[in-house]
Amino acid sequence: MKYGFGVDLGGTFVKLAYFDQTGAMLDKWQIPTDTSENGKNILPDIAASLSAYRKAHAIDDRDILGVGIGVPGPVDESGIVNCCVNLGWGVQNVAQALSSLTGLAVCVGNDANLAALGEWGKGSGVGCKNMLMVTLGTGIGGGIVLDGKILYGAHGAAGEIGNIIINRSETQMHTSGGYGCAEQYCSANGIVFLAKRYLENCSTPSQLRELPDFTCKDIFSAAKDGDCAATQILDQFYSLFGQFLANLCGVLNPALIVLGGGVSKAGQTLVDGVRPYFEHYAFHAQRATEIRIAALGNDAGVYGAFALALQHFFK
Amino acid sequence: MKYGFGVDLGGTFVKLAYFDQTGAMLDKWQIPTDTSENGKNILPDIAASLSAYRKAHAIDDRDILGVGIGVPGPVDESGIVNCCVNLGWGVQNVAQALSSLTGLAVCVGNDANLAALGEWGKGSGVGCKNMLMVTLGTGIGGGIVLDGKILYGAHGAAGEIGNIIINRSETQMHTSGGYGCAEQYCSANGIVFLAKRYLENCSTPSQLRELPDFTCKDIFSAAKDGDCAATQILDQFYSLFGQFLANLCGVLNPALIVLGGGVSKAGQTLVDGVRPYFEHYAFHAQRATEIRIAALGNDAGVYGAFALALQHFFK
Repeated sequence: MKYGFGVDLGGTFVKLAYFDQTGAMLDKWQIPTDTSENGKNILPDIAASLSAYRKAHAIDDRDILGVGIGVPGPVDESGIVNCCVNLGWGVQNVAQALSSLTGLAVCVGNDANLAALGEWGKGSGVGCKNMLMVTLGTGIGGGIVLDGKILYGAHGAAGEIGNIIINRSETQMHTSGGYGCAEQYCSANGIVFLAKRYLENCSTPSQLRELPDFTCKDIFSAAKDGDCAATQILDQFYSLFGQFLANLCGVLNPALIVLGGGVSKAGQTLVDGVRPYFEHYAFHAQRATEIRIAALGNDAGVYGAFALALQHFFK
Repeated sequence: MKYGFGVDLGGTFVKLAYFDQTGAMLDKWQIPTDTSENGKNILPDIAASLSAYRKAHAIDDRDILGVGIGVPGPVDESGIVNCCVNLGWGVQNVAQALSSLTGLAVCVGNDANLAALGEWGKGSGVGCKNMLMVTLGTGIGGGIVLDGKILYGAHGAAGEIGNIIINRSETQMHTSGGYGCAEQYCSANGIVFLAKRYLENCSTPSQLRELPDFTCKDIFSAAKDGDCAATQILDQFYSLFGQFLANLCGVLNPALIVLGGGVSKAGQTLVDGVRPYFEHYAFHAQRATEIRIAALGNDAGVYGAFALALQHFFK
């Protein structure tokens, strides 16, 4: 039996996990992400953690197939990382750098793409030929898996769907600099944005008005309690999100859409809410597309990172 | 040397061509499409034409690799055609039916997908890894070629991009039943729709007002003559089309977009017009995407149909 590591590099924490060659997770842990000095300590910290783990568990490097690592930025098919704004990184060859530091074979992918690959291999997408994963977190990420392979795109930016314009009539600028992109309405922050605008423009009573800094979770929870304003707000969100998913299907026609990220904690409520709008906006041949909630939660990234390592190093 | 046929089945004409195994076209001709009686004569007519051609040129069937045929409807990876509204066809196995009629190996694809494959192999997309073709004709078609293979999608409907909503504020219904889809503004009919609406809502003088039934070509031609209204109309079109292409790139991040169909006869004017809006709407990593006019004109479909036959039958 051979083994390997999956690493999911986020802006706050680095998640690490140890797998066997069947893709079963044997152990997991995390370390803080040190973004000081343009993130120059990040890869050395990861290498040190992997080294300490191997030492503590007396793991022979000859039994290690390799390491897969997911990073928060575009990664092209050759493994070049093209700017990770959150980490302070410019363009760099992460695979080469981490390989030098660890003495292990390393491959690299975009975090959202690897989450999709993780869900495809061990989560909600098992057995699915073509899959799109949409991650609704602080922002929006996307990953496309075709026949078990990540679609990278020409500049490593396939699945960078958060910037897609879904409402060209929007007059307020989004933090991305655009107007009316999917992230402006359908991310966790986006749903809060819709809610604030709704409440400012009407006098409908709402328990949300009692919370000066309500979150996306508060909105779902208020709607569950029968709060009329919250229900209307989510309806606006579902309409925009349904159109967004229908447009994505218009391009890719995946067999399955998997919804991940913080907003997906709303569970089946989210799927049931978006489904009618999705079917309304989708082309007839795409209306039957299945929509499911992700199964692996925060572990999708490390599962996918190791799955990528398997594809690269396990022939 | 082996040979084969490419067939492009349209609503009015069937285009047929004879190729050698290098993909060079040796001959082409066309026959009318008989859509009477739910299109029951179409495949027998094609079989008869192929048979007459082989007889007239004393072609030995043993030298024929096979036939590729493109049809105007969704086709899944197994070759099942899922309704061709223009032909009166429901669900059927076209490959099997045409193979029985001709005694030749037959494979089938969607016409827009095959046009993309044709441009990829012998037209504007030669040497390109990932390509998106957008066909702006009476309607809008799309085809996606990844590593030289058509992306079919789960229901044969990948690249069915005409129904994608690009303006959710639209109040007028499109013939497709939707509001604000790409086809409503960016097809040849769509540009005429934009023009009529523009002229109805202002009194700007325009040579278009002299033409009771102007076409898309008339609009481009008026703009070229310096007609101010026509220029404004095309600017509206370019803005919508640029957003549309940027959104498609947000999903796929192709290396190249190839523009085909009647509207693409405007040539470099079209590329130059849409480019600034495309860059405005596109995610930074996708802004460099190349946009080119298709090279094969009406022959793209037969080139692609034969290319598909090569992929299926030339091992």
